[in-house]
Amino acid sequence: MKEARYFYVPNAAQATELPLEEARHAVSVLRLKAGDEIFLMDGEGSFYQANVTLAATKHCMYDIVKALPQQKTWKGHVHLAIAPTKMMDRMEWMIEKMTEVGFDEITFLDCRFSERKKLRIDRLEKIVIAAMKQSRKAWKPVVHPIMSFQDFVNQQREGGLYIAHCYTEIARKDFLSEIQQANDQQDITMLVGPEGDFSMDEVKQALEKGFSSVSLGQNRLRTETAGLVSIVMSQVVKRVL
Amino acid sequence: MKEARYFYVPNAAQATELPLEEARHAVSVLRLKAGDEIFLMDGEGSFYQANVTLAATKHCMYDIVKALPQQKTWKGHVHLAIAPTKMMDRMEWMIEKMTEVGFDEITFLDCRFSERKKLRIDRLEKIVIAAMKQSRKAWKPVVHPIMSFQDFVNQQREGGLYIAHCYTEIARKDFLSEIQQANDQQDITMLVGPEGDFSMDEVKQALEKGFSSVSLGQNRLRTETAGLVSIVMSQVVKRVL
Repeated sequence: MKEARYFYVPNAAQATELPLEEARHAVSVLRLKAGDEIFLMDGEGSFYQANVTLAATKHCMYDIVKALPQQKTWKGHVHLAIAPTKMMDRMEWMIEKMTEVGFDEITFLDCRFSERKKLRIDRLEKIVIAAMKQSRKAWKPVVHPIMSFQDFVNQQREGGLYIAHCYTEIARKDFLSEIQQANDQQDITMLVGPEGDFSMDEVKQALEKGFSSVSLGQNRLRTETAGLVSIVMSQVVKRVL
Repeated sequence: MKEARYFYVPNAAQATELPLEEARHAVSVLRLKAGDEIFLMDGEGSFYQANVTLAATKHCMYDIVKALPQQKTWKGHVHLAIAPTKMMDRMEWMIEKMTEVGFDEITFLDCRFSERKKLRIDRLEKIVIAAMKQSRKAWKPVVHPIMSFQDFVNQQREGGLYIAHCYTEIARKDFLSEIQQANDQQDITMLVGPEGDFSMDEVKQALEKGFSSVSLGQNRLRTETAGLVSIVMSQVVKRVL
C-alpha cells in the first residue's frame, strides 16, 4: 500500500500550485508526475485530495478532487509560553513532539534569567510543518517570535492562566488537577520558565495578572520536558476520543 | 545558594569511595576537596548526605553523615518494551525524558519490522544516570539489552499488559482509560512497535499471551513519542502528590 503524500499549502482551496519548497520536494525528491494523487493540508482544518496537473522544476500544479474537512481532536485552545533553553536542539525536539501530541500556539519568552534571547523562528516553523505532515494535523500550530515576559502577561487573555515555577515559598496547586476541575472547553495558557526559573518578581507579576501558581507534580523537570509534559497533560484532559 | 552535588554510587551505604567516573567528575571538574559536602544516590531508594574525606586524581573517598530514605512518587511498576528507532538520538532523548518523568524498566525489542537490531546499552545507561541525577530520582530505571519480541511476550508477567499498534482491523481500547480503570497499584507493561509497526502476527501473539490491544488516542505518534506519551500517561494515573 502506497503511503499518501501530504503537502502543506496555506489557502489550498484557492491556490493552484504547491509553494516553492513543497514543489521542489514533490518533483525532485518524490518524482511526482501529472496524474499522481496528492493530499493537501491548509493548516486551518481541511485536507484536500488532489491530482497533480503539471510537474516542472520548481512548479507543481494541482486540481482539487475533494475537500476533506477534519474534526479537531481536542477541546479549547492550548497555548504554551516558554523561555527558550540555551541549547536550541532542546526547543526543536520539544516543538516537534508538541506538534505530534497536539497544541495550538507557542510563544517564546524573554525572561530575567533567560539564557537565550534570540531564536530562529523560520527553523522552528519548518520543524512544525514537517511534524504536522507526519502526524496529519489539520490545524497548524502558531509559532510566535520571542517577546518580553512583561508584554506577554500584560496582554488580555481568556480561559485558565497558569504559571509553573519551583518556588516552594509560594503556594502551588497541581496543574493537572486544576485543568481536570475546569470546564474542558476552556482555553489554557501555561507559562514555563528558563533553566534558572522565573524570577520571584516575574511570578508575582503573573499572579497579579490573574495567573494561578502551579506545579507539574513532584518531578524536577528540565524546561523542555516541563513544556512537553504540560501539553500531554492538556491533551489527557481535553482530547476527544 | 550553592546547588547540592549528587553522585550515583551503587551500594553507597557499604562503599567508601565514588566509582571512577564519578570520582573524576568530582575531583577534576567540580574541584571538590576534603571536607566538602556531597549527596549520594544508591539507585535503590536512598540518598545519603556525606563529606569528602580524600580527593585525589582518580579517587574520591567519603564518610556518610546521614541516610535520607526517599518515598517513591508513583505506584506500581512501569515497564516499557519498545523497538528501537533507526536514528539512535531519538531513543536517547526518549530515555532521558522518561527518566525525568519517572519509570521503572525498559526493554528494547527486536521485531519483524525493526530497523535497528543493535544498540549501545552503555551509552543509554549513562544518559539514564545523568537524567536521574539531574531530576533527583531515588530509584535507577533498569535498562535491558535488546531481546526478541517472542522471548519478551513469552515471559510470565504480573499486572496490566498492553500492546499499542495501528491496525484498525483489530479492536483497540484506549490505553489511558484502561489504566485509569485498573487498580492504581497494578504494574504496567506497555509494548510499542518500530516505525513500520508490529507485524499482524506479532500483535496476535501478544493478544494470545494476555496483552490487551490499545491505542494512545487519535494522534499519529512517532515510535519515541508513543513511548514517552505512554510513560507520561502512566504517571498521570499513578503519581503520588
